[in-house]
Amino acid sequence: MKPKASRGFFFEDFHKGQLLRHPIPRTVTEGDLALYIALTGDRRPLHCSATFAQALGFARETLHDWLAFHFVFGKTVGQVSLNAVANLGYADGRFLCPVHVGDTLHSESEVLGTRELSSGKAGIVWVRTRGMNQHGQEVIRYCRWVMVEKRDPSKPTGARDAPELPKCVPAAELRAPSELDMRRFADVGWATGGAAAWEDYQVGERIDHVDGMTIDESDHTSATRLYQNTARVHFNLHQMAGSRFGRRLIYGGHVISVASSLAFNGLENALHVLALNSGMHANPTFAGDTIYAWTEITEKAEITGRDDVGAIRTLLCAVKNVDPTAEPVPRRVKNEKGEDVPDPRLVLELDLWLLMPRKKAVG
Amino acid sequence: MKPKASRGFFFEDFHKGQLLRHPIPRTVTEGDLALYIALTGDRRPLHCSATFAQALGFARETLHDWLAFHFVFGKTVGQVSLNAVANLGYADGRFLCPVHVGDTLHSESEVLGTRELSSGKAGIVWVRTRGMNQHGQEVIRYCRWVMVEKRDPSKPTGARDAPELPKCVPAAELRAPSELDMRRFADVGWATGGAAAWEDYQVGERIDHVDGMTIDESDHTSATRLYQNTARVHFNLHQMAGSRFGRRLIYGGHVISVASSLAFNGLENALHVLALNSGMHANPTFAGDTIYAWTEITEKAEITGRDDVGAIRTLLCAVKNVDPTAEPVPRRVKNEKGEDVPDPRLVLELDLWLLMPRKKAVG
Amino acid sequence: MKPKASRGFFFEDFHKGQLLRHPIPRTVTEGDLALYIALTGDRRPLHCSATFAQALGFARETLHDWLAFHFVFGKTVGQVSLNAVANLGYADGRFLCPVHVGDTLHSESEVLGTRELSSGKAGIVWVRTRGMNQHGQEVIRYCRWVMVEKRDPSKPTGARDAPELPKCVPAAELRAPSELDMRRFADVGWATGGAAAWEDYQVGERIDHVDGMTIDESDHTSATRLYQNTARVHFNLHQMAGSRFGRRLIYGGHVISVASSLAFNGLENALHVLALNSGMHANPTFAGDTIYAWTEITEKAEITGRDDVGAIRTLLCAVKNVDPTAEPVPRRVKNEKGEDVPDPRLVLELDLWLLMPRKKAVG
Repeated sequence: MKPKASRGFFFEDFHKGQLLRHPIPRTVTEGDLALYIALTGDRRPLHCSATFAQALGFARETLHDWLAFHFVFGKTVGQVSLNAVANLGYADGRFLCPVHVGDTLHSESEVLGTRELSSGKAGIVWVRTRGMNQHGQEVIRYCRWVMVEKRDPSKPTGARDAPELPKCVPAAELRAPSELDMRRFADVGWATGGAAAWEDYQVGERIDHVDGMTIDESDHTSATRLYQNTARVHFNLHQMAGSRFGRRLIYGGHVISVASSLAFNGLENALHVLALNSGMHANPTFAGDTIYAWTEITEKAEITGRDDVGAIRTLLCAVKNVDPTAEPVPRRVKNEKGEDVPDPRLVLELDLWLLMPRKKAVG
Repeated sequence: MKPKASRGFFFEDFHKGQLLRHPIPRTVTEGDLALYIALTGDRRPLHCSATFAQALGFARETLHDWLAFHFVFGKTVGQVSLNAVANLGYADGRFLCPVHVGDTLHSESEVLGTRELSSGKAGIVWVRTRGMNQHGQEVIRYCRWVMVEKRDPSKPTGARDAPELPKCVPAAELRAPSELDMRRFADVGWATGGAAAWEDYQVGERIDHVDGMTIDESDHTSATRLYQNTARVHFNLHQMAGSRFGRRLIYGGHVISVASSLAFNGLENALHVLALNSGMHANPTFAGDTIYAWTEITEKAEITGRDDVGAIRTLLCAVKNVDPTAEPVPRRVKNEKGEDVPDPRLVLELDLWLLMPRKKAVG
Repeated sequence: MKPKASRGFFFEDFHKGQLLRHPIPRTVTEGDLALYIALTGDRRPLHCSATFAQALGFARETLHDWLAFHFVFGKTVGQVSLNAVANLGYADGRFLCPVHVGDTLHSESEVLGTRELSSGKAGIVWVRTRGMNQHGQEVIRYCRWVMVEKRDPSKPTGARDAPELPKCVPAAELRAPSELDMRRFADVGWATGGAAAWEDYQVGERIDHVDGMTIDESDHTSATRLYQNTARVHFNLHQMAGSRFGRRLIYGGHVISVASSLAFNGLENALHVLALNSGMHANPTFAGDTIYAWTEITEKAEITGRDDVGAIRTLLCAVKNVDPTAEPVPRRVKNEKGEDVPDPRLVLELDLWLLMPRKKAVG
């Protein structure tokens, strides 16, 4: 009899054009809202204040963009990345539609291409994942690529279908949520605690987010379980004790959420993540590590059809166990071989488009 | 003045036929649904997906059977087992009625019998507990027996009223939830991620659930507090440091939930726990332990009045800090005295009836 | 350019009469109810049982008074106490209006006075904070004073505006919630598990709450994040490792909640905190500490306009890592200089007015 329990897909199981419908649709509850705050410290009022959200045209407080992302991502793990060696990158991520309590999310992925490593031991798989709600609306879309183990490393597959992915979501394609009504923002904007508008951010500006947050073991495992993400590297100490890490790895998405939560201080009016242009988990994070973050403003753009909100492109950087306001941390260093590599303290680089109110709306 | 704070019941306080109405009725919230997922990693779509649950005839996602069980159980602790030395067993457990967000549960127990140990230091108390909802419907019923300290070990009580309990809930008494409508299962069953139907499981088959999950201190204490279970062995390190364990014990019910969550992989279509035939917490579990689980199919039965669902009887076994797919773990071993005892790595054996869709429904 | 991220207020930023409107209004969810139970073990049926709450005249279960307090308090931290050296005391705290799921809370503070320390290195700031709901109703009001760092310790400010604060909320000003209807209490009071009425508590009586609860790192950080309290001493191990404590401090409010949860055993019928007369976090608490609590009854009073409920004034004391039922713990000891100081094991003293049913209602 074929074993009934799944061990996930191996590299050989993927092929370009393959469609994967991921099981376990997930209805969002008020418990998810509260847990997200408890586990990350998020303070954005659009996601914790019904009165603020309603004043801006939403039915009630919406899910944090990263919370919705983690739900969508979590569903893909059982097929796409259960046997992943590494989560290599993201591209072309878009947050298309607000998610509310009561919505039911599910995910689908399309394999964009595969390429076997020259060593033949593993391969890279590119997928585009779509998160859909119960009305069939696409709420999130993104590409990611992962290195996946082969079932049989001795048999070459010949796979070399690497896709071309855009480095950045074009500004012309950014859209504000259709619900977003900024006419009352001047009245309710005190709720964010920030005064800066789109016009106040300058390309080249760096914002140090000041605070640090230590991640403990139960924090990241609870968050990752909440997203029904089953990647065993996060959960199984018995197995990970024998790995080169010697302990459990923190889900990179939890690091994104913690960095994003720290980044509230200085980006209080950033109402929405418009796009994830690219991202990299530069080094692993472990329980006990303290995360600090800064943001670099790299570009600004208008948003089609709106004069009350604009887009800022930001590079969100997170480091561990070093306070970047006290000690400069370069993003890249030379390793002993003279190669350009991420500073070993750098854990995250995320290239994002954020929606920011314009002066007209801030009043 | 009599002290106002309770120290729980001692063996002398129980007598056969005694009825205990347990305080602290508990209304279920959306927070409970989310926390159960965050603390156990549960993925069964009936409990996390409103669309799936509604397609099967339920008003919305229902509480996981074990979550409801822990609520009902938790209320009994203050009277039944605050001074328990050990939780010895379960029998005749039935999950009678689905529980939803908004329902208010309370518990009542009847003492089925008591028996003093020959040493005279403690005694065994058998109770039948009923969990009721706000409409007076019985949602869960089970028997358990615990070893309880005596207030005065020097005074014999003569108690020897041990009841006879059934080894198994008879298949003829199993009932599917009246709401459960399988007509649309073929359309929505992708949500479970599993393809196997009742017919696909064979008596004698063993399903290794593959994954392991490490339990940390805040995981089990948060879960146990959520159930308002006050047994001090789970919470008080200051006291437990001086016990033979030297640390806090994990609530056995949390181990049930973790094992049950792991058991989704290979039993994806098991929609409901019909009965808890018997159970044993074979060895204690501590923070830092990694739980693995397997299931043995021991019996199959039809469910009265239904040709779309059937019952499989399963022995759910959980072990700690050993991967049973890599290393065989016997359930019983000989100790140094030559006695047959549970393998010291075995932490749970649970004899259950599970409801499983039949081929007719899976389509 | 001025840095966009805030580093909080320093002593020089406060002046008497100053009004602070704190950002981040917070809508209460069912997730908050569940998390409060999971993190503190609270069992008061008014806050976890809709049927009990409805029988007493409330729309549904209400927020625990301390949960509402922590939300209101949490919002003030970013301005009032981000640079606080110590939280020195509370006075004149009142719980004025029940809070329900769906309510949106925000906070405002008025600076009552400031006084520079004679050393000139820091100063004390007194504020009165008001928590308001979305209808503009004041739900909680309290005074607190904190020692705050100076931006420039070398420049004297001359501030010496210390206000006079009452030692106790006068009994004549205590009010029962207008919703509270005790006519059905005799029928539903079994839900608390306690039999004692207002008349049964005697001034001078001491109630040992028996149980102990250990606080782990993820417990207190999750609770404190839930309240969106950003005080870095609770979250940043990297920074705190270099402090005189060498580790993170537990938010004093979490210790209040744990002590209050333990105090259910012996004060089961205390339905509501009427007032916080004064309070002191006598010594810091750290992860791994086990909290025990006792209550001393110090005064009794009638409540204006009610013959079915009365007020008892209690001193709630919490200690760490010592069982006060096994070993007497004095509240004050002499230090090596012969000064009267709190016993180093004492972590909390809270002078409260609690609402208690009278015999007439208990039946």
